[in-house]
Amino acid sequence: MNYPIIRYIIGWVLNFEACFMILPCVTAVIYGEREGIAFAAVMVACCILGMLLIAKKPKKNTFYLKEGFVTVSLSWLALSLMGALPFVLNGDIPNYTDALFEIISGFTTTGSSILTNVEALAKCSLMWRSFTHWVGGMGVLVFILAVLPMAGGSNMNLMKAESPGPQVGKLVPKVRRTAMILYGMYVFITLVQIVLLLVGGMPVFDTLTITFGTAGTGGFAIYNDSCASYTNYQQIIITIFMILFGINFNAYYFLFLKKWKQFLKCEEMRWYLIIIGAATAIITVNTVQMFSGVGEALKHAAFQVGSIITTTGYVTTNYDLWPPLSRGILVTLMFVGACAGSTGGGIKVSRVVILAKTVKKEMQSFVHPRSVQKIQFEGHSVEHETLRSINVFLVAYLFIFTASVLIVSLDGFDLVTNFTAVATTLNNVGPGMEMVGATGNFSAFSPLSKYIMMFDMLAGRLEIFPVLLCFYPRTWKRF
Amino acid sequence: MNYPIIRYIIGWVLNFEACFMILPCVTAVIYGEREGIAFAAVMVACCILGMLLIAKKPKKNTFYLKEGFVTVSLSWLALSLMGALPFVLNGDIPNYTDALFEIISGFTTTGSSILTNVEALAKCSLMWRSFTHWVGGMGVLVFILAVLPMAGGSNMNLMKAESPGPQVGKLVPKVRRTAMILYGMYVFITLVQIVLLLVGGMPVFDTLTITFGTAGTGGFAIYNDSCASYTNYQQIIITIFMILFGINFNAYYFLFLKKWKQFLKCEEMRWYLIIIGAATAIITVNTVQMFSGVGEALKHAAFQVGSIITTTGYVTTNYDLWPPLSRGILVTLMFVGACAGSTGGGIKVSRVVILAKTVKKEMQSFVHPRSVQKIQFEGHSVEHETLRSINVFLVAYLFIFTASVLIVSLDGFDLVTNFTAVATTLNNVGPGMEMVGATGNFSAFSPLSKYIMMFDMLAGRLEIFPVLLCFYPRTWKRF
Repeated sequence: MNYPIIRYIIGWVLNFEACFMILPCVTAVIYGEREGIAFAAVMVACCILGMLLIAKKPKKNTFYLKEGFVTVSLSWLALSLMGALPFVLNGDIPNYTDALFEIISGFTTTGSSILTNVEALAKCSLMWRSFTHWVGGMGVLVFILAVLPMAGGSNMNLMKAESPGPQVGKLVPKVRRTAMILYGMYVFITLVQIVLLLVGGMPVFDTLTITFGTAGTGGFAIYNDSCASYTNYQQIIITIFMILFGINFNAYYFLFLKKWKQFLKCEEMRWYLIIIGAATAIITVNTVQMFSGVGEALKHAAFQVGSIITTTGYVTTNYDLWPPLSRGILVTLMFVGACAGSTGGGIKVSRVVILAKTVKKEMQSFVHPRSVQKIQFEGHSVEHETLRSINVFLVAYLFIFTASVLIVSLDGFDLVTNFTAVATTLNNVGPGMEMVGATGNFSAFSPLSKYIMMFDMLAGRLEIFPVLLCFYPRTWKRF
Repeated sequence: MNYPIIRYIIGWVLNFEACFMILPCVTAVIYGEREGIAFAAVMVACCILGMLLIAKKPKKNTFYLKEGFVTVSLSWLALSLMGALPFVLNGDIPNYTDALFEIISGFTTTGSSILTNVEALAKCSLMWRSFTHWVGGMGVLVFILAVLPMAGGSNMNLMKAESPGPQVGKLVPKVRRTAMILYGMYVFITLVQIVLLLVGGMPVFDTLTITFGTAGTGGFAIYNDSCASYTNYQQIIITIFMILFGINFNAYYFLFLKKWKQFLKCEEMRWYLIIIGAATAIITVNTVQMFSGVGEALKHAAFQVGSIITTTGYVTTNYDLWPPLSRGILVTLMFVGACAGSTGGGIKVSRVVILAKTVKKEMQSFVHPRSVQKIQFEGHSVEHETLRSINVFLVAYLFIFTASVLIVSLDGFDLVTNFTAVATTLNNVGPGMEMVGATGNFSAFSPLSKYIMMFDMLAGRLEIFPVLLCFYPRTWKRF
């Protein structure tokens, strides 16, 4: 284990966190909030700590997958441990466990909250909460790779650990350029949404926070009713951009290169849009009698489907009152999740599609036992190694899910609450059903349950193994 | 597709079903019940139909895995279609859909019932219901293989399709002798339970029906309170035998051969007993304040854990009133299921253990990327092909589970009812939670939901692919 490089990178992560905190500080200055002092103080602390950690350059620069995984997990932990402090210091969330839950929910783009009254928070705290979504969406390490020239050719292992999806492709041969392109596209689409919301008459503060939450597929809102009080235009813009941010960024790269044909051929994107279309249609029919008309039902259905499948978690209506079929579809979409290589969470559409193809292939092999076929996805055969990693991901996912639900059950809440609370945190969605539903929150859980769900949020965002590896004793052996 | 051989085997299945119906006929004679006439009539019908189907011997005797799968599925369907008729004819279950649900639940050893008042049934109907558990437990085709000398060496494909578990091992080189040994052990343990229950003062009729339900891990009882009114001794005997029938019969074969060491080494059995022990202990602690003492809590916990993990489904207390942790554990055990090669259902302990080992191996491979290890189970390396089939089983299982829950949701019942109704039918357990809980039943579901759950019960009992293959168009092409 190359400990010096881990220390060094965590140092840089903290330095960057200090930079990220400029935004809440500026917000505090603009609104004249005393709560901003806490951000300034933690900013200085991050800076000092970061500088100390990067003071001594590591001798060996290369590191293997194991180091990549551990580095990413510990970086996210460091980021959260420091990021939670301002809430405690400025009194917005006095309890540190709650503050940590809130900020992990922010960085992992989950959007589950322990707050019963979001509107009571200072504007600088609200800005920080939402901005963590934006930072966590594309990834902190990817950001650092994009802006920091790091020697050593093994940076791919960092990106592998932080990027969602079964296969992590470099867009271009150099990792640094790939990271820059990804962030470039991310910034561009974010700016487009900001402009469109401002044009629609949304105040600047609302526009920024909501856009950060949409871009990162996070879901923290600044009102207790989430997005229910926004205008139709604003809700439709949010719907469209949630869905856009759930698409594999490779597709946008094809657009950027003007490779229209390859863009339209993106198999994962097509399945993703088909699922969204089908789910929206079924829910519209299923809920139409609850709304004033088909248009209204369609708007809410599309918003909620887009919000849940992309694992954003914004809400325009209390879907917990919908019929069981619609609620069942929403719970299913929580697990499906968005596309790989997007900012969304969940199991990912590509994994679900490839797994479905393994079943079809199995049936073919029963009918024609001698034919040897490979599964095709995105126009290529899926390698055995990829299939294996998808399968083991699913299994690890199911074990963590089951264990989490059982531990959370100790709190004594109903089965639907326990099941959906874990589903929504492990898949980085945000709200669940019943007690943690559209109008509920996570404040009533015991500290034990909260820590389990923090683990789930990190495990979900980093796709399980980077986090799990930290709990595997052999990882830490020096030899 | 070798259609003649499929027709021929289904013919034999119907002939044997006619023989099986002797038991309810005898019961009707003993108790002087007019309802028995229906059984006699259907017996004759089965016999005639069966004779017609076997009249012409097929030219080609060999058949491949595809034919094996289809034959088994269609045999079970034929068995159920005819087996449901007596209930309709004698008026005990006038609706054919309900009668079919009940008898599929019987043959697949599920034990889910659409009856609100079991005690109103004629004794011959109750006997038939319970006896189908015994027949379905070890398998009809296995029975036919044991008693009928069939030419052709591909009978293994029939056994593969009907026996639960990831690997179907022949105990001895000849399929027929393997089938005979399996049924021999099955009959022997069944007789031991009958004797022990009779010694404990249980009436003969109760003893036979309860033992059939225990041996097949079915769960149909003859009282509305299931097993709640039996004595402590009787409940403890039932607990022990439920757990015994959930053990891999390979283990008993080692006992039979006096290979004690190999018996004790059976890895799946050890994990199975560890899970039962742990679950019982946790539930005892979790529910102790609901009972008069630790002993009482332990008795109910052991009974319910044994009943659910073996997918039997007998009930001594309304576990739906237990705390969420205990209920969560029971739902989890529904999915885990019993050992492969037992009469129990579910995913099977061996699959769960092997899948857990793939996760551990994955973590090792991150730490030592160059080391190549194979997963060990029961003292052997697990072949790649076995791993692949376990993974694809899990995926197909999850897809069927999800689709079923969504369709059943159309009926508008609560999420826990929908989730556990599908869980309990797909895993062949019997009762679920809420509406289909310990004191509930399946009568309120729509016909559509009932047919979906009939599919699930068959898919669960035959381990998915034999049933799924019948819905795959290419299966039926002649070429």
